Amino acid sequence: MSSFPVPLLFFFFFSLFVSSVLSDQAAFSSHLLPRPLILEYPETDELTLQCTSWRVAGEANNLNPWKTIPDECLEYVRGYVNGKGYLVDLQRVAEEAVAYAKGLQLQGDGKDVWVFDIDETLLSNLPYYKDHGYGAEVFNPVDFDMWVDKATAPALEASLKLYQQLLDMGFKIILLTGRSEAQRAVTEQNLRSAGFQSWDRLILRATEDHGKLAATYKSEKRDEMLEAGYRILGNSGDQWSDLLGWPMSTRSFKLPNPMYYIS
Amino acid sequence: MSSFPVPLLFFFFFSLFVSSVLSDQAAFSSHLLPRPLILEYPETDELTLQCTSWRVAGEANNLNPWKTIPDECLEYVRGYVNGKGYLVDLQRVAEEAVAYAKGLQLQGDGKDVWVFDIDETLLSNLPYYKDHGYGAEVFNPVDFDMWVDKATAPALEASLKLYQQLLDMGFKIILLTGRSEAQRAVTEQNLRSAGFQSWDRLILRATEDHGKLAATYKSEKRDEMLEAGYRILGNSGDQWSDLLGWPMSTRSFKLPNPMYYIS
Repeated sequence: MSSFPVPLLFFFFFSLFVSSVLSDQAAFSSHLLPRPLILEYPETDELTLQCTSWRVAGEANNLNPWKTIPDECLEYVRGYVNGKGYLVDLQRVAEEAVAYAKGLQLQGDGKDVWVFDIDETLLSNLPYYKDHGYGAEVFNPVDFDMWVDKATAPALEASLKLYQQLLDMGFKIILLTGRSEAQRAVTEQNLRSAGFQSWDRLILRATEDHGKLAATYKSEKRDEMLEAGYRILGNSGDQWSDLLGWPMSTRSFKLPNPMYYIS
Repeated sequence: MSSFPVPLLFFFFFSLFVSSVLSDQAAFSSHLLPRPLILEYPETDELTLQCTSWRVAGEANNLNPWKTIPDECLEYVRGYVNGKGYLVDLQRVAEEAVAYAKGLQLQGDGKDVWVFDIDETLLSNLPYYKDHGYGAEVFNPVDFDMWVDKATAPALEASLKLYQQLLDMGFKIILLTGRSEAQRAVTEQNLRSAGFQSWDRLILRATEDHGKLAATYKSEKRDEMLEAGYRILGNSGDQWSDLLGWPMSTRSFKLPNPMYYIS
């Protein structure tokens, strides 16, 4: 007598659960036929969909300048940067960069350059941002500088591997950061303890660079590289202001960063 | 006698189901504590995560040139372009463009220009791609030209609204497409029937432009606009080759397109 209702009841609750998972998307589906229970493509709730759309718009440089992440996306951003999504995205960018670099014929005269930004490109400030709302709090330069002075930011592993592969291929590596010249020693210390070495130059903001937009400052520095005879074949950065502006690198790679925006 | 096992059994199957949903992500979680059953952030299966990562990399211009979408992402791409994700993304790009445009002070001399690409920017070829594997098939120019000749591509609604708003603000609109000069009549007919009007110029590939990379051809055309005294304040396109190259627009907007890549 009890053998019959059990699967029925199970099916009832199971269907209830699946329906609730599907309901958000189903409301927007253009299909007129009932949807199959096999989940063919991502079933996302409205908030996830909106926050993903916001994140992708940022990665594609479509967003106007912003000071904090959208309040409603805090949990989404927290999940992304602590989860597999961020790691997979970082790894993919590094892999595409390696594939591109391998296809190049270097001239081998010590002028083939790859430019790297530092924060959220080579070093991860995630431990800092975990304590500061993942970008939900307005950026506090005093707090952040105290964190930088600790020189304990870990490497982004995918970038460290890329960095080493580029060195092995014969690239000169130039580090171009928005950090201040006053932070040179702690920055070098942090880079070395995180595993980075053998960079050709480390360029930080000098007194006259303070107050310049990042894109302006970095473009000027790239221009100086060209004048010094370097060929900028690759450029990796987590901000579009690391990459855009004249002159540009032959190829640029935008690392993911949904936590902050630098003009 | 039957009342006790039922919920137990249900819980057993339910847990089994939830575990299988979580297992992919859990393997990579840095949390040491058991995860709560409340789903705080997106629970995505491995394939969705990989295909999203691939799509985002494309939108950020991180992918090396590709001829077809990854086989395993066919269902993902089908779901995205037919679902709410694509619509939300298109709308967001248009809204950011409007916000940017409203912040500009136009000179009102008829030289304030917004450049639009056409395919997947103003007009949607989704009906064509539905019949051609959503980018899983290698692009067939003969088939595609037959589709273009029908002049039945619908408007991307968010772009049509943006287009009208820009006209109302006083922008001159220049259409710059990779389509051939031979397709001028059907292109004009299609644009008008989809609701577009009052463009200043429609630039198509002339004989001498065939064989040029899209980025080269479009950059040359933007250069001609500057020489004619136009100020290119905005540029909307679904390909990075619509947007990159010298000269660039003051701001560029990358519309989503996970179906094809044009160098």
